[in-house]
Amino acid sequence: MRLSELSAETGVSTASLKFYLRESLLEPGEPRTRTQADYGPAHVERVRLIRALVESGGLSLAQVRRVIEALDSPTVPRHELLGVAQDALTDGTAYDEDPDWTAAAVAFVEHRDWRIRDGDVLLPQLGSQLKALADTCGVGGASTLDRWADAAEAIAAGDLETLTDDDEQALRTAIVGTVLSDRVLQTLRRLAQQNLTATLLERAGAERQTNKAGPDSLR
Amino acid sequence: MRLSELSAETGVSTASLKFYLRESLLEPGEPRTRTQADYGPAHVERVRLIRALVESGGLSLAQVRRVIEALDSPTVPRHELLGVAQDALTDGTAYDEDPDWTAAAVAFVEHRDWRIRDGDVLLPQLGSQLKALADTCGVGGASTLDRWADAAEAIAAGDLETLTDDDEQALRTAIVGTVLSDRVLQTLRRLAQQNLTATLLERAGAERQTNKAGPDSLR
Repeated sequence: MRLSELSAETGVSTASLKFYLRESLLEPGEPRTRTQADYGPAHVERVRLIRALVESGGLSLAQVRRVIEALDSPTVPRHELLGVAQDALTDGTAYDEDPDWTAAAVAFVEHRDWRIRDGDVLLPQLGSQLKALADTCGVGGASTLDRWADAAEAIAAGDLETLTDDDEQALRTAIVGTVLSDRVLQTLRRLAQQNLTATLLERAGAERQTNKAGPDSLR
Repeated sequence: MRLSELSAETGVSTASLKFYLRESLLEPGEPRTRTQADYGPAHVERVRLIRALVESGGLSLAQVRRVIEALDSPTVPRHELLGVAQDALTDGTAYDEDPDWTAAAVAFVEHRDWRIRDGDVLLPQLGSQLKALADTCGVGGASTLDRWADAAEAIAAGDLETLTDDDEQALRTAIVGTVLSDRVLQTLRRLAQQNLTATLLERAGAERQTNKAGPDSLR
């Protein structure tokens, strides 16, 4: 198909497609004439992936590039899949490393009996995030952290299950699934907050009703 | 303190501070001379907040502005706290609304018995995220979604508990706590993935050892 047809098929503007081509995120099409190229199903799939990563996943262009490079690299051994996915998704932010908070993160991981690569970038990252939480709103005490870690373990167990099915798709699932489902989880958390607030409000209302009924019925 | 001292106190460059002032994210200091102003503890706190939202929370400038406006607005009734927080954190992405997937999101929320505002922007957002997951890697079946929703409920219950303590800080905690702890949860999920991978690998290694010992011991 032509570029205009690729655009129609994926809903991505030709301007964006040309940008992806220029940035080598998308492979050039098969040359057809001097000014036209032919695009196939692999292009459609790649464009949909880039779009999902940028729009739904909120990734930067640099992150999309790392993800694409990882996906295009020769087969990654299965036990390194999540590591490669994690590296590709590293957000490249230069975290202010605070030794005390990194130590706190390491201590927490040890408290959970989690086996983490020595010197993993996730540890100072966690430390810096915990510091930001403590500095700005005093949230993130030990019991909260444990609750979050319980939730993270349950989710990670599911992540690993999804990897056992199809070798071909495994890295793609590890990377794309993780980044997109991070967003799904954020949305579900907000929905669950809303539901709980509604439930608590109704309960408070019912209690007020009961309290009001009390004295009235005594009259 | 002077601007240079505010910079030293917060670790944020004077160029960034001037940018915050120009963008009205930071209130002007008390004028001291014609070219100098005086900054106090409220400025230090505000600068730390902006920095945490941008650096650890990954918020855009537009989102930081909405968060600041919400925090500066007159007292928000307690039962609207999370709603205001959620509105401030809306990422402003124009989600491709797909009626079928929005309907799927609504059906899921009903299946969970969650009470969500009619027409809430979170529903098409969830639909679009689920569509992206399904399109790109076929993840997000019913059992996975239920597992995530269980985790989201556990986390949201904790979110609401943190709000019951201090009225003054409640909105700040609702907004800042949610955005920063989203990141903490992402990091914890990756750490938990790494731990599980290490555990599974070790188990697989141990099984290989056992299998090897078998035939050898028969010889």
